[in-house]
Amino acid sequence: MPKYYDDLDTVLRAVADPTRRGVVERLAKSPAVVSELAAPFSMALPSFMQHLGILENAGVITSEKHGRVRTVSLRPGALDVLHLWLGEQRTPAEHKADGLGIHLTLTAPKEI
Amino acid sequence: MPKYYDDLDTVLRAVADPTRRGVVERLAKSPAVVSELAAPFSMALPSFMQHLGILENAGVITSEKHGRVRTVSLRPGALDVLHLWLGEQRTPAEHKADGLGIHLTLTAPKEI
Repeated sequence: MPKYYDDLDTVLRAVADPTRRGVVERLAKSPAVVSELAAPFSMALPSFMQHLGILENAGVITSEKHGRVRTVSLRPGALDVLHLWLGEQRTPAEHKADGLGIHLTLTAPKEI
Repeated sequence: MPKYYDDLDTVLRAVADPTRRGVVERLAKSPAVVSELAAPFSMALPSFMQHLGILENAGVITSEKHGRVRTVSLRPGALDVLHLWLGEQRTPAEHKADGLGIHLTLTAPKEI
């Protein structure tokens, strides 16, 4: 079993929840403070903070506190384990299709 | 909210479980009969069949019964919603890195 499997499991469980996925989607645009992140969700702040805690423990987000304001960011490369796993699940037919795509790219006329 | 979000939620929940992920990994190589799929897992067959049911309801796998033997396959494109979602979570810094990569590819000398 590849070494990254523990991370993969944690990251998948973290993003399998729609609230936490919403946070990731928002943070992909830019970092945000907690109150701004929480605003679109009709949820008590302690529940929302639990979701942030799960994302932070999974290494998907990081946060920094300046005074009373906590700013949350998406950790660069946080979702790489998911990319890696998805790449490994390509079926033989999909690999063949990739090969065909590469062949067509390499043999295509430069100008059409 | 994009239309594919319901599928994404179902697929993510399906693959967030390590047993079900193990099934996907095995089926990425080739279709398999249920007994062969179940063999690596120390689990009662009814529990294992429940996992297969979740994967099938999520549209990740398909199965066909011939006589008493059920053959299970990965559904082509089953994980595309995950690829799509991951692509959308690229941060501005990652987009910039992509742009740099494309620039370097286009401006690189043909032979070194």
